Amino acid sequence: MERKHQLLSQIATNDRHGENSPYFDGWKAYDNNPFHPTNNPDGVIQMGLAENQLSADLIVDWIKKHPEASICTPEGVHMFKDIASFQDYHGLPEFRQAIAKFMGRVRGGRVTFDPDRIVMGGGATGANELIMFCLADPGDAFLVPSPYYPAFYRDLGWRTGVQIVPVDCDSSNNFQITRGALEAAYDKARQDGINVKGLIVTNPSNPLGTTLDRETLKCLLSFINEKNIHIVCDEIYAATIFGSSNFISISEVVEEIMDCNRDLVHIVSSLSKDMGLPGLRVGIVYSYNDAVVNCGRKMSSFGLVSSQTQYLLASMLSDEEFVENFLAVSSKRIEKRHSIFTKGLEQIGISCLESNAGVFVWMNLRHLLEEQTNDGEMALWRVIINDVKLNVSPSSSFHCVEPGWFRVCFANMDDETLEVALKRIHAFVGEQKERETLSAKTKCWKKNLRLSFSSRIFEEGIGSPIAMSPHSPLVRARN
Amino acid sequence: MERKHQLLSQIATNDRHGENSPYFDGWKAYDNNPFHPTNNPDGVIQMGLAENQLSADLIVDWIKKHPEASICTPEGVHMFKDIASFQDYHGLPEFRQAIAKFMGRVRGGRVTFDPDRIVMGGGATGANELIMFCLADPGDAFLVPSPYYPAFYRDLGWRTGVQIVPVDCDSSNNFQITRGALEAAYDKARQDGINVKGLIVTNPSNPLGTTLDRETLKCLLSFINEKNIHIVCDEIYAATIFGSSNFISISEVVEEIMDCNRDLVHIVSSLSKDMGLPGLRVGIVYSYNDAVVNCGRKMSSFGLVSSQTQYLLASMLSDEEFVENFLAVSSKRIEKRHSIFTKGLEQIGISCLESNAGVFVWMNLRHLLEEQTNDGEMALWRVIINDVKLNVSPSSSFHCVEPGWFRVCFANMDDETLEVALKRIHAFVGEQKERETLSAKTKCWKKNLRLSFSSRIFEEGIGSPIAMSPHSPLVRARN
Repeated sequence: MERKHQLLSQIATNDRHGENSPYFDGWKAYDNNPFHPTNNPDGVIQMGLAENQLSADLIVDWIKKHPEASICTPEGVHMFKDIASFQDYHGLPEFRQAIAKFMGRVRGGRVTFDPDRIVMGGGATGANELIMFCLADPGDAFLVPSPYYPAFYRDLGWRTGVQIVPVDCDSSNNFQITRGALEAAYDKARQDGINVKGLIVTNPSNPLGTTLDRETLKCLLSFINEKNIHIVCDEIYAATIFGSSNFISISEVVEEIMDCNRDLVHIVSSLSKDMGLPGLRVGIVYSYNDAVVNCGRKMSSFGLVSSQTQYLLASMLSDEEFVENFLAVSSKRIEKRHSIFTKGLEQIGISCLESNAGVFVWMNLRHLLEEQTNDGEMALWRVIINDVKLNVSPSSSFHCVEPGWFRVCFANMDDETLEVALKRIHAFVGEQKERETLSAKTKCWKKNLRLSFSSRIFEEGIGSPIAMSPHSPLVRARN
Repeated sequence: MERKHQLLSQIATNDRHGENSPYFDGWKAYDNNPFHPTNNPDGVIQMGLAENQLSADLIVDWIKKHPEASICTPEGVHMFKDIASFQDYHGLPEFRQAIAKFMGRVRGGRVTFDPDRIVMGGGATGANELIMFCLADPGDAFLVPSPYYPAFYRDLGWRTGVQIVPVDCDSSNNFQITRGALEAAYDKARQDGINVKGLIVTNPSNPLGTTLDRETLKCLLSFINEKNIHIVCDEIYAATIFGSSNFISISEVVEEIMDCNRDLVHIVSSLSKDMGLPGLRVGIVYSYNDAVVNCGRKMSSFGLVSSQTQYLLASMLSDEEFVENFLAVSSKRIEKRHSIFTKGLEQIGISCLESNAGVFVWMNLRHLLEEQTNDGEMALWRVIINDVKLNVSPSSSFHCVEPGWFRVCFANMDDETLEVALKRIHAFVGEQKERETLSAKTKCWKKNLRLSFSSRIFEEGIGSPIAMSPHSPLVRARN
C-alpha cells in the first residue's frame, strides 16, 4: 500500500546517478566563473574535463577535402534520403567495417576485429550500460579496480541495478591490479552474499593514464576464467597512448591464451577520446560471445548512432592514410602536452604517477595535505578550486583509497591556457612554501577558505533542477 | 547456487524483446525476396514499414540552400570542432528551442512548449524506455489500449521490467477508448495484484491511423487524475494528420482543464515519422513534471542525439517558412496516397477503418477469413505474404482482440510500387471470389500454402544470430 503513493520510480528517486557528490561543486565553480584569456582572465580553468581537443584540425582538413562524405553537401546530398531513413540496428555495413578496421589499427594492427561483432551503443556511456544489461541482474556486482571513473556509478549501475565492488589499488605498486587484490575483493563480496558477475577495467586507465601490461592482462584473464565471470575492458582511451610503448589490448592477449573462454570477454570502445568526437555519440561493444552480440544488437535500438554520423565516419575511418596520420600526430601532440605539463610541475617539486596514455595526469599532492584523510584532501581541493581557480578532480571522487591525488586534464585547452594554469600552480606552491615556514604561527587558512567557499555557493543559489549546471561532468555524457 | 551458473542476465535470456514472434516471418519473406520494379518484379512488396518517405525532397532542397547548417560544408566546417566536442546532456540550446517551436507548430500553434522541458532520448524507442524508467519499477504496469505497436514490449518493458496491461478496444465503436474499458483493465490488473503506474496511448494511433477527440482526451485525463497514475501520450505521428481535421494534442487539453495534476502528464515526440528522419534518432520526452525532466535529462546520457544532427536540425526547424511549407505539403502528399490506396481497395469491396493520420491503413479482411480466429488470420496472412507477396501486418501482432484486420503501410514506396501492390490485391480478391464459388469442392489451399512456406523457410536456413535479417521490424529501431 505504501508503494502506491510513490509517483516516480525508485531509479528516479534514488541518488545512484551520482550527481549529488560534493565533487561536482568544482564544476559549478567553473560554470559560474569560466576562464577566458581576455574576457575573464581570473576565471576558473577547466581541468576536470577529459577531452582530446588537440587534433580536431586534422579532421576538419579531411572534411574539407571530402565533401562527398557528408549527406549535407552538394556532392553528397543525393544520399540524404537513403541515409536519413536508415535505422537498421546492425548499423551501416560500411560503418561497422570502418570501425572494426579502426579498432585494429589503434591496436597496432596486431589483432583484427570482426565487423559482425561491432554493436552500437549511445556513446561509451550507453555501451557500458548495454553490456551490463546483457551480463548482470539487479543486485549482481562487477569488480572495479579503484581509482575508477566517477560516472561508473551512473553508467554501470543506475538503471541496471548492478553494484560496484571496488578492488582497492594504491601507490605502493603504482596502483597496479594484483591477483591478491582481486581475490580479496571477490571473497569479501561473496562473504557479503553478493553475486559477482564480472570485472571491468579501464585500459588505458581513467584516471591513472597508465596501461595494463601483458602479464597483468594474462592474470586478469586467468582470474575471470577460474571464477567463470566476465571481463569487460573499457578501452576508450586506446588511441591516446604516447611515447615508445605499445598499447596491449585484451583482444591481443585473448588470442595468445589457448584455454580462455572467449564467451567471457567483452570490449568497450568509442571515438570520444580516440578521435576527440564526444558529441557524435559513438559507443561500441565488441563481444566474443555470440549471445551477447545478438542481445546487445537488439538493445542498440535504444542508443543508435545517427545515420548521418555513421555515414560520415564510415568514409573517414576507412581512409587508411588519414587514420594512420591522425593517430601518429594525435599521439605526438598528447605526448608534447603531457611533457610540458609534467615538466612544469616537476620544476616546483610536484610529481605525477608515471603514465603513457590518457589526456590527464594523476598528480600527487599528498605532501600538501594538512592531514592524510579525505577531509584533508577536500580542504586542499577547495583551495585549488576557489583560490588557485583550477577545477581538478580529487582522488576521493575516483573512489581512491589514498587521499592527495588529483586527476588533471591537459588536452581540452590551448597552449596558452595550459601556461596560465601552470603559472597559477607555481604561484600557489610558492605561497604554500612560505606558509609552511610560518605554519606554526598561522594555521587557519583552511578554515577561512572553507567558509568563503560555502558562502559563495550559497549566494549563487545553486540547486534549481532545471537551471542545473550545463557543463558538469555528468551533464556531459562522458568525461 | 543455481543462479551462479547463469552466465548472462535474465534480460538477455528472456524473450521479452518480442523478436521471436511468428509475425516476423513476413519480414524475413520480404528480406529474402524484396520487390524491385525491374530486377525482381515478382518479389515481396514491403508494406509493413511505417516510414514517411514522401517528402524527403523538400528537406534535400532546404539542405542545398543552407550549406551553413552543416558542420561538413566549406560554409559550416568552422563550427566542426565546437559541435563535435559538445556533449552536454541538455542538448544544444538552439536545438531544444527549435524542437519546442516545431512541436508547437505541428499542434497548430495552439500550444507552446518550454524548451527547458525538452528531454532527448535515442529516438522514440529510447524516449519511451526513458519515461518508463522514470515512472515505474520492475513489475509495475502501464495500461495500453489495443491494438498497439508491437515493439512496445521491447520499448516499454524489456529492460525496465514494466508490464503491459492491454485495454481491449474493438470495431463495435471504431476502436475508440472508453472509460469502461479503462476501468475494466485497471480493476482486473488490481485484482491480479498488479501495481498500475499509468496509461500510455498513441495519438495519432499506430496502427489505427485515427486521432483522439477532445472528449476522449478529457476522459483519459479525468481517469488518470482520479486514479493518480501517469499518462504518456506518444504523439510521434502528430504531423502525419491529413484532411480537414485538426490534431488535438494532450498538451492542448491539459491547458483547458483546471484541476489536472500536470505532474502526471508526459508526451513523447520524434522526427522519425513527422519529418521522415528515423535514421537521425531524435526522440523527445516532454514532461510537465519537474522531477521527471530533471531525472530524464540525466538518463539522456544513454541516448543523446548526435551533436552533428542536433546542429543541422536546430537550423532547419527554426526556419519557420520551411517548416510551414513542409508540414502543409507532407500532409497533402500523405492524404493523396491514402486516398489512392483506400479508393483502390474500395473498388474491390475492401474497406479500411476511417482514418485521418498515419502512414498506414487498418484494412478489414474479416470477410476473407475461413474462421474468425487468430489461426484463421494467420492462414490468410500467409497467403498474402507468400502468394500475393505483400508484407502486411496482421491484427494479432498488435494484440488486437479482433482477427482479420491488417496494418498496411503506404508511404514507404513510390507511386508505381503502390500501383503494383493494388493490382496484386485486386487479382487476389478476384481469385478469392472464384474460389468461393468453388469452395465446397476445393478447400485445401490453406494447408498447401502453409506447407510450401515452411519448406521455403527451412531451405533458407534462417536462424543464425549474426546473419539475422537486417530489415526486420525490430531490427529497425522504430516502425
